[in-house]
Amino acid sequence: MTMRIGLIGAGRMGKVFAHTLAFSVAGVQLAAVADPDEAAARDAAARYHIPAWFSDYRRMLAEVELDAAVVVTPTGTHAQVIQAVAAAGRHIFTEKPLADSLAGCDAAIAAAEAAGVKLQVGFMRRFDPAYLMARQKIEAGAIGTPVMFKGVGRDPGRPSLEFARRENSGGLILDMGIHDFDLARWLMGAEVDRVYAEGSCLVFPELQEVGDIDNAVINLHYSNGAVGNIDVSRNALYGYDIRTEVLGSEGALRIGKDQLTDTLVLTRAGITHDTVPNFMTRFASAYAEEIRDFVRCVLEDCEPAVTGREARAATAIGVAATRSLDEGRPVLISEVLGGSLWKKQPPSASA
Amino acid sequence: MTMRIGLIGAGRMGKVFAHTLAFSVAGVQLAAVADPDEAAARDAAARYHIPAWFSDYRRMLAEVELDAAVVVTPTGTHAQVIQAVAAAGRHIFTEKPLADSLAGCDAAIAAAEAAGVKLQVGFMRRFDPAYLMARQKIEAGAIGTPVMFKGVGRDPGRPSLEFARRENSGGLILDMGIHDFDLARWLMGAEVDRVYAEGSCLVFPELQEVGDIDNAVINLHYSNGAVGNIDVSRNALYGYDIRTEVLGSEGALRIGKDQLTDTLVLTRAGITHDTVPNFMTRFASAYAEEIRDFVRCVLEDCEPAVTGREARAATAIGVAATRSLDEGRPVLISEVLGGSLWKKQPPSASA
Amino acid sequence: MTMRIGLIGAGRMGKVFAHTLAFSVAGVQLAAVADPDEAAARDAAARYHIPAWFSDYRRMLAEVELDAAVVVTPTGTHAQVIQAVAAAGRHIFTEKPLADSLAGCDAAIAAAEAAGVKLQVGFMRRFDPAYLMARQKIEAGAIGTPVMFKGVGRDPGRPSLEFARRENSGGLILDMGIHDFDLARWLMGAEVDRVYAEGSCLVFPELQEVGDIDNAVINLHYSNGAVGNIDVSRNALYGYDIRTEVLGSEGALRIGKDQLTDTLVLTRAGITHDTVPNFMTRFASAYAEEIRDFVRCVLEDCEPAVTGREARAATAIGVAATRSLDEGRPVLISEVLGGSLWKKQPPSASA
Amino acid sequence: MTMRIGLIGAGRMGKVFAHTLAFSVAGVQLAAVADPDEAAARDAAARYHIPAWFSDYRRMLAEVELDAAVVVTPTGTHAQVIQAVAAAGRHIFTEKPLADSLAGCDAAIAAAEAAGVKLQVGFMRRFDPAYLMARQKIEAGAIGTPVMFKGVGRDPGRPSLEFARRENSGGLILDMGIHDFDLARWLMGAEVDRVYAEGSCLVFPELQEVGDIDNAVINLHYSNGAVGNIDVSRNALYGYDIRTEVLGSEGALRIGKDQLTDTLVLTRAGITHDTVPNFMTRFASAYAEEIRDFVRCVLEDCEPAVTGREARAATAIGVAATRSLDEGRPVLISEVLGGSLWKKQPPSASA
Repeated sequence: MTMRIGLIGAGRMGKVFAHTLAFSVAGVQLAAVADPDEAAARDAAARYHIPAWFSDYRRMLAEVELDAAVVVTPTGTHAQVIQAVAAAGRHIFTEKPLADSLAGCDAAIAAAEAAGVKLQVGFMRRFDPAYLMARQKIEAGAIGTPVMFKGVGRDPGRPSLEFARRENSGGLILDMGIHDFDLARWLMGAEVDRVYAEGSCLVFPELQEVGDIDNAVINLHYSNGAVGNIDVSRNALYGYDIRTEVLGSEGALRIGKDQLTDTLVLTRAGITHDTVPNFMTRFASAYAEEIRDFVRCVLEDCEPAVTGREARAATAIGVAATRSLDEGRPVLISEVLGGSLWKKQPPSASA
Repeated sequence: MTMRIGLIGAGRMGKVFAHTLAFSVAGVQLAAVADPDEAAARDAAARYHIPAWFSDYRRMLAEVELDAAVVVTPTGTHAQVIQAVAAAGRHIFTEKPLADSLAGCDAAIAAAEAAGVKLQVGFMRRFDPAYLMARQKIEAGAIGTPVMFKGVGRDPGRPSLEFARRENSGGLILDMGIHDFDLARWLMGAEVDRVYAEGSCLVFPELQEVGDIDNAVINLHYSNGAVGNIDVSRNALYGYDIRTEVLGSEGALRIGKDQLTDTLVLTRAGITHDTVPNFMTRFASAYAEEIRDFVRCVLEDCEPAVTGREARAATAIGVAATRSLDEGRPVLISEVLGGSLWKKQPPSASA
Repeated sequence: MTMRIGLIGAGRMGKVFAHTLAFSVAGVQLAAVADPDEAAARDAAARYHIPAWFSDYRRMLAEVELDAAVVVTPTGTHAQVIQAVAAAGRHIFTEKPLADSLAGCDAAIAAAEAAGVKLQVGFMRRFDPAYLMARQKIEAGAIGTPVMFKGVGRDPGRPSLEFARRENSGGLILDMGIHDFDLARWLMGAEVDRVYAEGSCLVFPELQEVGDIDNAVINLHYSNGAVGNIDVSRNALYGYDIRTEVLGSEGALRIGKDQLTDTLVLTRAGITHDTVPNFMTRFASAYAEEIRDFVRCVLEDCEPAVTGREARAATAIGVAATRSLDEGRPVLISEVLGGSLWKKQPPSASA
Repeated sequence: MTMRIGLIGAGRMGKVFAHTLAFSVAGVQLAAVADPDEAAARDAAARYHIPAWFSDYRRMLAEVELDAAVVVTPTGTHAQVIQAVAAAGRHIFTEKPLADSLAGCDAAIAAAEAAGVKLQVGFMRRFDPAYLMARQKIEAGAIGTPVMFKGVGRDPGRPSLEFARRENSGGLILDMGIHDFDLARWLMGAEVDRVYAEGSCLVFPELQEVGDIDNAVINLHYSNGAVGNIDVSRNALYGYDIRTEVLGSEGALRIGKDQLTDTLVLTRAGITHDTVPNFMTRFASAYAEEIRDFVRCVLEDCEPAVTGREARAATAIGVAATRSLDEGRPVLISEVLGGSLWKKQPPSASA
C-alpha cells in the first residue's frame, strides 16, 4: 500500500521535506503540494514530480485524496493548518515547533485527538544515529543516573530579519532552543520544572531592531533535582555547531559532529579540518528517518515517536525561558502552563 | 530522458547497486536484472521493482531495450560479460576490478572501444567527499609536490574461502589493494614503476589452504622518484579501516574515518567510540555518486571519470605486487605489461 | 641570587608545591616548612631536603631568613596566615582561593599592600599552554569580540566530607568554580555583573549531610552584555574534566584535554583512550610555571600575573553564585561587594 | 648516595641531556663535562652548574671521580668513546645509535662486557608513556597476536648537510629509522629477518650532494611471518610526526601525538590545532625517564632496559635496509650479521 501525502508549504524547509519524500522514503507518494506562493508550489511540483499543486492548502485538502499531510508552513500558522488537516481527517506530520504558543499547541493537539488522526512533530534529532545511541546507552545504564544535561545549539549565521521577529520565529530561545528542550526531556527521562535565561544582542545589532537577540544561555532545573544548561547562538561562523552532553552518576555521553569531510590538512599553519555547514547536512538522514517512522506509525496504527504532547512540553520550556529573559527572574514551568487546559485536566483523563 | 539500465549480477554487491539505482539515482530506470541464480534474480526484481529478470544475461541483452548495463558478476567473468555487453552496443559500468588479468583488461577495453560504448570502472573512492577534497587540495597546491603515498586497507574479517581462491578474488593483494593502487596513481599524479611485497597467513590459517594470505605490505616506487607503502589485512576485527595519506613537499593530507556514530561514551574504562563496520556503510554515498557520474557521462557523451585504461593501470600494480610476493623480489610494472598489446602500441595511437 | 622560600602547609597540595619548588623551579631554595601536623612537616622536610621544619608557621617566620612564603593552608586560614606573612615582610604566593570570604580577601590584600610585599594567587590555569594560547589568540583578534564564555569543571570523585563543609571548602560552587570564575574574566576581558545558579546533591547523598551539593550550573551575565555558563560536578567518574570555550563574533576557541596517554586501543568493543586522572597531572607544568613567574616577579619587582584584586573579583562571582543557589534568584555582583571597603574607595586611590 | 656523572659531548643533544641531568633526575650529580669544542664545554658547565669541564674526555675520565658517563658525541665516535669509558671502569649511558656500524656495536658491547660495566642505549621511546602503555596492552593480550608493525618517523626539516653525510648520520634510513627498528622488535616481540627499502631525494636536492635522501619506505618481514612497513622523511613541514601502529589478531594499537597544545581554533577557515614541533618536546619526559632508569639500574645492579645487544639488533635492521636501498633488492638480516662475532658465537655462550 502506498501512502498518499500532501505537502503544505514549499519554502526552504518545505523543499527539504519534498526531496526527502520524493527520494528517500519508500511506500509514499507525494500526491499534491500547496503554497500561497504559486511559483513555489508549481516549482516544487515540477522538481519532485508531484502531480498536483495548489496555492490554497484548504482546496488541496478538499480536492485530493490524501492519507496524510506534512505541514511545513511558518510557525505562526501551524495551529490553524493542523486544525484544518485534522478536520479533513488526514494524519499530520508537522515540522517543529508544534505552534508558537502553548494555546496553539493545545488547539492542535485537541483537534488531532478529536479527529482521531496521528500527530507527529519534527524533532528529527531523535532519529539521528548519534542521539539514538545516546538514548540507548542511557537506557542500558551505561552512565548510571543522568544528573546533568548540556546543550549547545549554534547557527552559522543570522536568519532573515523577517524570520527573526518574535511573532514569526518565537525569538532566538524558542527557535534555536526547541530541539535542545526536547532532548533535555528525552535524554534525561525527567521533567524540567524551572528555567533561567540570560541573553544579549552583540554580533548582529540589526536583530535588536526586530526584537531579537543573538546569544543566550539557559539554566535548567529538573523536578528530580537534576540540572542543566543550554546555550544558543546565531554567530557560530565556523559552522553549524550542535553538541549535547549527559552527565550521569557513572559516566557521561557526548554527542557532536565537528567535521564534515574525513580529511585532515597538515601544513605549517597546523592541522585543520572542515566543519558542518548547516542543519540539512548534519541531519539529512534524520529527516528521512522521522518521515519513515511517521509512515510506519500510520500504517501500524501506533503512537507517534514524537507526540503533540511531547512537543508541547518542549515548547513550555522555551516559553518559560523566554519569559525569564524578559522578566529577569527564574520562571517555573508551571507558571506558563497556568492557563492551560491540560494542566488541570489532561485530555487522557477526559477521554 | 530516462536511462534504461540492466543489472548483471544480483549477489551481495549486485544488491548494493540495485538499491542505489532504485533509490538514489535520478534519471535511471532499472529495466532488467540477470543472474544465473534464478532465485537471486527474481528476488532482486521483486525487492527493487525491476520489471524483468533473467537467468541468462545474454538473453537479457537480446530481449530488453537497454541504454547501459551495470556489471557486478564474479571478477573472473568480467572480461567476457563486458565483451558481450559491448557487442550488444550498450554502455558499461563495471564493478572493480575490470578483470582478473591484464589480458582480460585489454580484451574488455578493446571491446568497448571497438563498439564505441562507454566503459566506467567502479573505483568508488574517487567519488567519496574526503578523497575528492584530498585531490582538490593537492591540485590546488596545498601540500606542494606529493612525494609519498600511504594506504591502509583492512577488512574486519575474512571472506568466504570460495571467494578467497586466487582464481576468484585475485588474492589478497589484488582484491583488497586495487582501490589503493588506483588512489596511489590518482592522488599522486604519477605512475608506479616498481613494487615489492611481503605477506603472510597468520590469523586465518584456513586461507592458506586455498592459496591466500591475510596480511601484506607493499612498497611502491614511482617513475618520478616518489615512494609509497600500502598495507592490506583481513583481520581489522575492530572495524573496516581505510586510511590514506599523501605527504608533500609543503604539507600532508590524511583521509580516514574511524568513527561511525558521533557519540562518545565516557566511563571509568576510558573514552570510547564505535567504528565503521563495512565498506557499504563507509562508501554509501560514493556508490551513488559514481553511478550518477556514469549516467551524466553517458548523457553528455564525455569520458568516464574512471576509464578502463585507468583500471588496467591499477590492476598492473596489483599483478606486479602479487608476482613480487610469489617470487620474493622487486617487480617492475613494465615486466607485467610485457606481453600487453597496449605496451607497444597504445590504442590511441592506432585509432 | 637564590630566593629563600618558606612553605606554610604540608598537606596534599602542600606536597605538590614542595615537589615543584624542589625539582622544577630554578633560583629558589626551599628553606623551611611549617605545618601544625608535626609529622607532615617533618616528612616534607625529609622528602624534599628542606633544612628546617616547624609546627608553628609564626615561629618559622620569626626564626628563618626568608624572601617569600608559599601559603597552602586550609582556605579558612588563608587571610590570617597571609596577614602574618605580610607583617613579617615576606612576599606571598598563596594557593587559591585567596580567602573564604570577601572580607578575608580585603584583609589579605590590605595587609600585603600595607607591607609593600608581592601577593600572587594560584590560578595556575593561566600558566597552562592551552589557556595561554587561547588568551593570545583572543588578544590577536582570532575570534573577533568574545560574546560567550563556557566552563566545565568536574572532579572525578567527591572530596572528604570534612573538606566539603562550606566553612572549609566554601561549598562546591566556590571550590570547583573559582578557576572558571577567574577564566571567565581573564579570557573574556570583561566583568561579570550578574549570576544565577542551580544545584543539587544527587550522586553523593552524604554531601548533603555536611551542607554541600555535587552538581551545579551557573549562568553568567557580563556588564558588556556577554553571557556565559559554567557547570561544576564531583561525579565525572571517567576522569578529571576541565573544558573551556569562548565564542566570539568571528570564531571560537575550545580548550580541553581528554586523553592522557597518546595511545588508542582498537578492539571489537570500539576505539578507546584513557582520560586525565586529576588536576595535578593535568596542570603539572602550570604549577611550576606559576611559581617561576612569582620568582621572576619578585626578582624584577613587577606586578604579579594574578593579583589579590583579581582573586577577589573571582571570589566575588563565587560568593554571588552561592548566594544565588541559596536564595533562588539572580544575584548582582554589586550586592556581594556592598559591604566591601574597595567598592567605595579602591586602595589604589587611597594609596 | 649520589651518582657522579660525566657528560661527554655538549652539542645540541648534549645540552638536552645536561638539562635533564641537572633538573629532572634525582640522585645524580653532573660532576664534569667534556667537549673538544672548549666553548661548548665551558658554556654547559656554567649553565648547568657543572664543577669541571674538559676539552678532552680522556682527561676527564682520568682526573674526575665518576660513577658513570653519558655519551652524546657524534655517532661515528661512539664505539671509541664507549671503549675508553669502559676501560676507565665507568658505567655507560650512550645516546642512540650505539655505533655507526655493526663492528662498532660489537666493539662497544665487548668492551663493556669485558669491563663489567653497564651499557644502556638511548632508545627513549621505550620510556614514553604512550609506548609503555602499548607494550603493556600487547603483553596483556589486548590485541591478540601482533601480525603487523607500522612506523612513521618524520622530521619537520632537513638536518645540516654536514650531519647528513652518511659517515656522520649513517644516512636517512639509519638516522631516522633506528627508533622504529627498535620499536619494531620491542613491540612485536619478534625478530625482523628481511627488509626491502625504496628511497629518493625529492624535496631537498642539496642532500643528494652529500649522498643522502629525504624520503624512504622500508618493508619488514619477521621470522615468525609477521610483516611491517616504515616510512621516514625529512619534510614533515607541518611538525614532528611520529606514529606507530601494531595490528594484532584481535585488535590494534595506535600511538601518535599530533597536537601540542590542547586548544582548538574554530573559524570560517575550519577547525585547527597546532602540532608537535620537535623530538625534544615530544619526548621530554622520556629523556628524563630513561636516565632515571639507568641510575636505578646502576644502583640496583640490574640489566639495563635497553642493552647494547638490543641496540645492535636495531642497527642491523638499519644497515640491512640501507644496503637494500643501495642494491635494489631485499636483504636478509643474516647477510649483514655475516661477519659478526656474535653471529657464530654469542658472548653469553663464551662467558
